[in-house]
Amino acid sequence: MTSDATLARLREYMVGPSRFMTLVSVFELGIVDTLRATPGQTAAQLAETVGAAKPDAVEQLLFLLVKEGFIAYDETTGGYSLDALGQVAEKDLDRALRYMNLIKVTALRQLFYLTESVKTGTIVGLKELYGADGTLYDAVDDNEDLNDSWLTLMNQVTANIDPWFFANIDVPAGSQVLDVAGNTGLGAIHTYRHKQSPGLKVTTFDLPHKETEALANFKAEGLEEHLSFIGGNVFAEIPKGFDVALIKHFLDMFDKDDVLTILKGVHKSLNVGGEVHILVPVYPEDITDTDNYNVDFFPAFFIGAAMGQGGPQKLSVYQAWLEEAGFKVTKAITKDAAEIPRDVIPVQAILSATKVA
Amino acid sequence: MTSDATLARLREYMVGPSRFMTLVSVFELGIVDTLRATPGQTAAQLAETVGAAKPDAVEQLLFLLVKEGFIAYDETTGGYSLDALGQVAEKDLDRALRYMNLIKVTALRQLFYLTESVKTGTIVGLKELYGADGTLYDAVDDNEDLNDSWLTLMNQVTANIDPWFFANIDVPAGSQVLDVAGNTGLGAIHTYRHKQSPGLKVTTFDLPHKETEALANFKAEGLEEHLSFIGGNVFAEIPKGFDVALIKHFLDMFDKDDVLTILKGVHKSLNVGGEVHILVPVYPEDITDTDNYNVDFFPAFFIGAAMGQGGPQKLSVYQAWLEEAGFKVTKAITKDAAEIPRDVIPVQAILSATKVA
Repeated sequence: MTSDATLARLREYMVGPSRFMTLVSVFELGIVDTLRATPGQTAAQLAETVGAAKPDAVEQLLFLLVKEGFIAYDETTGGYSLDALGQVAEKDLDRALRYMNLIKVTALRQLFYLTESVKTGTIVGLKELYGADGTLYDAVDDNEDLNDSWLTLMNQVTANIDPWFFANIDVPAGSQVLDVAGNTGLGAIHTYRHKQSPGLKVTTFDLPHKETEALANFKAEGLEEHLSFIGGNVFAEIPKGFDVALIKHFLDMFDKDDVLTILKGVHKSLNVGGEVHILVPVYPEDITDTDNYNVDFFPAFFIGAAMGQGGPQKLSVYQAWLEEAGFKVTKAITKDAAEIPRDVIPVQAILSATKVA
Repeated sequence: MTSDATLARLREYMVGPSRFMTLVSVFELGIVDTLRATPGQTAAQLAETVGAAKPDAVEQLLFLLVKEGFIAYDETTGGYSLDALGQVAEKDLDRALRYMNLIKVTALRQLFYLTESVKTGTIVGLKELYGADGTLYDAVDDNEDLNDSWLTLMNQVTANIDPWFFANIDVPAGSQVLDVAGNTGLGAIHTYRHKQSPGLKVTTFDLPHKETEALANFKAEGLEEHLSFIGGNVFAEIPKGFDVALIKHFLDMFDKDDVLTILKGVHKSLNVGGEVHILVPVYPEDITDTDNYNVDFFPAFFIGAAMGQGGPQKLSVYQAWLEEAGFKVTKAITKDAAEIPRDVIPVQAILSATKVA
């Protein structure tokens, strides 16, 4: 790369935050919805409709969207209309907007303190902005804005990825299944719905304070006979005697030492011959692969906004760690990029492994 | 643009904040300096040197820089060394880092509130984060972090752009010059240094509280005979009887109505035949020009972080506004993109205009 090319790339990085918020703001102001309903409005008309202080500000924000070809501007009439944004299905735009909102609410301001987070292993931004000492997953309990943006996204991610996950793992009839760090039971419910069989029992394992909500969720689904909850901490002791363990959306939150502690704990919890199935975003084996955006987002997000540590690994690294924990890896597949909508950042993988002895 | 291309572009926007802070943090941690001095260090060695809590976090941050080709990773030794970043002159990197620091300190967190800023015409982020009611230029007086990042950048911008500005404007010998919104006199000093002639007098016009520092600056340069200060407000009355008025780094801070007020005030302040010379960043005439990054940065910055209003305009728009204020435009030139380092966002222009009668 020439020095000029490197400097030009730095400029791309510099405009990252302003581009992001300009786009988010145009959506938040309702300009996209307004133009979808009534194309051809001028900056003055838009300002009045969306409650902007002055048309000048609307015009300024829309320059970038015109530059991108997202919105069209008619020099003759001074009217705006949807261009590329009008050709995207609304459900696709909604999905992208949820992710953008997650980034705005849980990460944008917090990342200001990324360097301090790396130095301390804590989420300094959460402390500074919310007075919160723990992780994002603790802070959502006390802060509605964090919870809303987080929960909305996680429900969407789960809905989109679970069908693929369950289609690619085997849960033998009548298995005793443990959903490790299964939160308030959604994973257990999905497991039962996708893998129902006579005698199938699924146990959600998570912190004790999640029990009440989990049991209520099981009851609401009419599944209280098949699903149960055990309270505890994955770093203390994981309950034993299971045929299948699931670890979804969890391993990427931790550094290597903690991941190994979890995997070894799961190894102990399984019967001999039992299987663990892991769902986790992965980095590409060739880190310079430009189609995989996990590297562009997750390190900063996990260290500076969510956990003060963690981040995904390459598939081969997770394989090695499973072997180190005593497992024999039987499956390691990454979701085909062609099957992932182009706005979606996480590239997910499934790893299956057996406790051999 | 296909729907897929639009969604992929939205993903580029989404990773803007995390990419930006990952890069900034690698510099802030001193990793680039460390690797320049001692190439080949592992994540564990780097973590110890830069005071990171764990090597895992260093490795996570560096994935992105390896993806970009900024830093190289040796699989065999586990050592990192500068790649593309090692081929950029340190003075060029320093310039880029100052701009990145400005964006981090004055804009990143503040832009979270951009939508509210558009609705109110005030900088909600400054209020929320600093308890400040005015503009960024007011807030720098009370907040060292804002002042440091801002002043460092402005001094750099002025040093880089003033030689071009003064090489392209004419200041007749013995002129009486007014530097409108001249702050604490740096512009007046530069004017005298570049355009010295018998009888040349330059007056800095700005808010009265800047007078003491301006006069001290003039004295420190030994120019107190040639430079003076008048306190006042450009929106009230601009002092009269000048041959030349300079308006640098100022018009882009305001919406059209305020720009016209300023230009009409300057028109009154000039003698007939007098000239105004304006230095201002401009948007390209074809807003879809991808080489001009003013559109990607300034609207969000001025509305959400600096002024609660404002933003540059096209050169043709400034020409039209000058004519509307009673001037005859005699020069309108934009700095050649080939002469601007590739990391620099502002594309600046000079407009000269005469008071004809």
